[in-house]
Amino acid sequence: MKYNDKKIVALCGGIGGSKLVLGLNNILDQKNLSIIANTGDDFLHLGFYICPDIDTVIYTLAGVSNTETGWGREDETWKTLDVLKELGADTWFQLGDKDLAIHLFRSKEKRNGVLLTTITRKITNKFGLKTNVLPMSNHPVQTFLETEDGEMSFQDYFVRNKCKPKVINILFKSKKPVATDAVKRSLMDKNLDGIIFCPSNPYLSIDPILSINRIRKLIENQKKPRIAISPIVGHDSVKGPTSKLMKEMGVEVSSLSIAKHYKGLIDGIVIDHEDEQQAEEIREMGIEVKLSKIIVETEEEKMRLAKESLDFIKEIGS
Amino acid sequence: MKYNDKKIVALCGGIGGSKLVLGLNNILDQKNLSIIANTGDDFLHLGFYICPDIDTVIYTLAGVSNTETGWGREDETWKTLDVLKELGADTWFQLGDKDLAIHLFRSKEKRNGVLLTTITRKITNKFGLKTNVLPMSNHPVQTFLETEDGEMSFQDYFVRNKCKPKVINILFKSKKPVATDAVKRSLMDKNLDGIIFCPSNPYLSIDPILSINRIRKLIENQKKPRIAISPIVGHDSVKGPTSKLMKEMGVEVSSLSIAKHYKGLIDGIVIDHEDEQQAEEIREMGIEVKLSKIIVETEEEKMRLAKESLDFIKEIGS
Repeated sequence: MKYNDKKIVALCGGIGGSKLVLGLNNILDQKNLSIIANTGDDFLHLGFYICPDIDTVIYTLAGVSNTETGWGREDETWKTLDVLKELGADTWFQLGDKDLAIHLFRSKEKRNGVLLTTITRKITNKFGLKTNVLPMSNHPVQTFLETEDGEMSFQDYFVRNKCKPKVINILFKSKKPVATDAVKRSLMDKNLDGIIFCPSNPYLSIDPILSINRIRKLIENQKKPRIAISPIVGHDSVKGPTSKLMKEMGVEVSSLSIAKHYKGLIDGIVIDHEDEQQAEEIREMGIEVKLSKIIVETEEEKMRLAKESLDFIKEIGS
Repeated sequence: MKYNDKKIVALCGGIGGSKLVLGLNNILDQKNLSIIANTGDDFLHLGFYICPDIDTVIYTLAGVSNTETGWGREDETWKTLDVLKELGADTWFQLGDKDLAIHLFRSKEKRNGVLLTTITRKITNKFGLKTNVLPMSNHPVQTFLETEDGEMSFQDYFVRNKCKPKVINILFKSKKPVATDAVKRSLMDKNLDGIIFCPSNPYLSIDPILSINRIRKLIENQKKPRIAISPIVGHDSVKGPTSKLMKEMGVEVSSLSIAKHYKGLIDGIVIDHEDEQQAEEIREMGIEVKLSKIIVETEEEKMRLAKESLDFIKEIGS
């Protein structure tokens, strides 16, 4: 199959989802790939407007991400942070010197009234990418976690408290939960071939995107195939706190639960060979299943999973 | 003479004045030295609140300044600036990675409503200094230059335009030109031994301090000896654009002109041996003169000039 003429929208969070979008970016014509990125984790820190997921996506696609840590940039230094520590400033959020420049640039542009979508395009272009990396919103939509230790913002939960507090519920707060024009255009594109829910955390990375009603509706009403890649293998998540969170919220940790979570929004789901016994029950929900090896580490594996996803979209659409 | 029990207030700009305050800091008990620092060059850049003269003073006293450039920190890197350049941001102002941390810390504190005096003390303490580095004001007092190319801020003139525009006049703009409590206390201290005008640019570094009426009055009415160190040797300035500026404003470049400029505010002036022939005319103005070698490069020379200044204060006072 020829892949590079396919037009795809991917919904993506940070580290987990980036693995698949890197594969997609390598096999598609970049300008045909639109990535709707979660901005629910965005936060102000030391005066900077920080978009962790957008940065992870851009660094990954540009090939400058730190493959060891999974976040931040490769060949990074920490001079500014070291001096900030000496000064006794709040340094729970790791700010590398190169990384800092992106936050600084974005913050400056934001203060000048430039839309986050435009700023993101400027940064993407400077990294030599033609990929449409689209913030889900130009306005703040903030993920909060109701935990046994009280309500806290995503960064407080994820970074400062290292995901330790037990989660009761997840909330998305926004005064203006509107989809951007670029996001709407990407989802209404007549030449679109399909939508892919990346193997990101459904609750913390994809749900914030879906919390914007217009985006959810455009996906619900979409005629082109919509598939998800499960972030769960067996009874554990591939990456991050997904399984811990599911347990705390009383949800069985399985790809079946992921399929149930996305019911009405997806036509198919890619799950691991290991979970083949769940396929039947998922199919009974009207969701098609493709089995694959969904833990991908090398660039080749990421491209392989991306190709399989596109094949699956084609199968569903035909 | 015993120096370390002397209590001194020094008026200081950046690089030029720092040489003398380093000497003073080495021979005085640090807590007995108050440095009223020029904040007329302070500016907002990329969201940072930057105080070039305060930083130069602190870096110099802490022994972490870059002795080659005269500004910024030693062993500095430029990772953030490099990425900012790639992003096409405004990078005319050199921001080193370590230096950035100070601006970041100060800006954060400012946003939290902390007074510049308090922030400066925090930074000074973190660098292990007991010296009272005092911003002349907690409120913006901004130096502007009326030039043949139009009016411009200090940083635009000094850094961006490299002092090239011909200066017609200098203005200090402030909505609230009030002296800080710490500055007033230092100048009204009954145990004060004297005031030293450092060999900084009188027009761009000392005049902004004197533009705050209360400070000028407290110096005018001071009973303790007040001396200046001339920044001019022969017909040229020791450092920076002082002589260029004097010529453009129609002032003869000489230590005599400096003495005239400070008339009514100083009781004595230290000038270079080379300018001995000007001593008579200065003395006729009622200003005492001490001859010295005022170009100081090594730490020993800086301490020597500091000691001579304290000796001079003692001579005048006795």
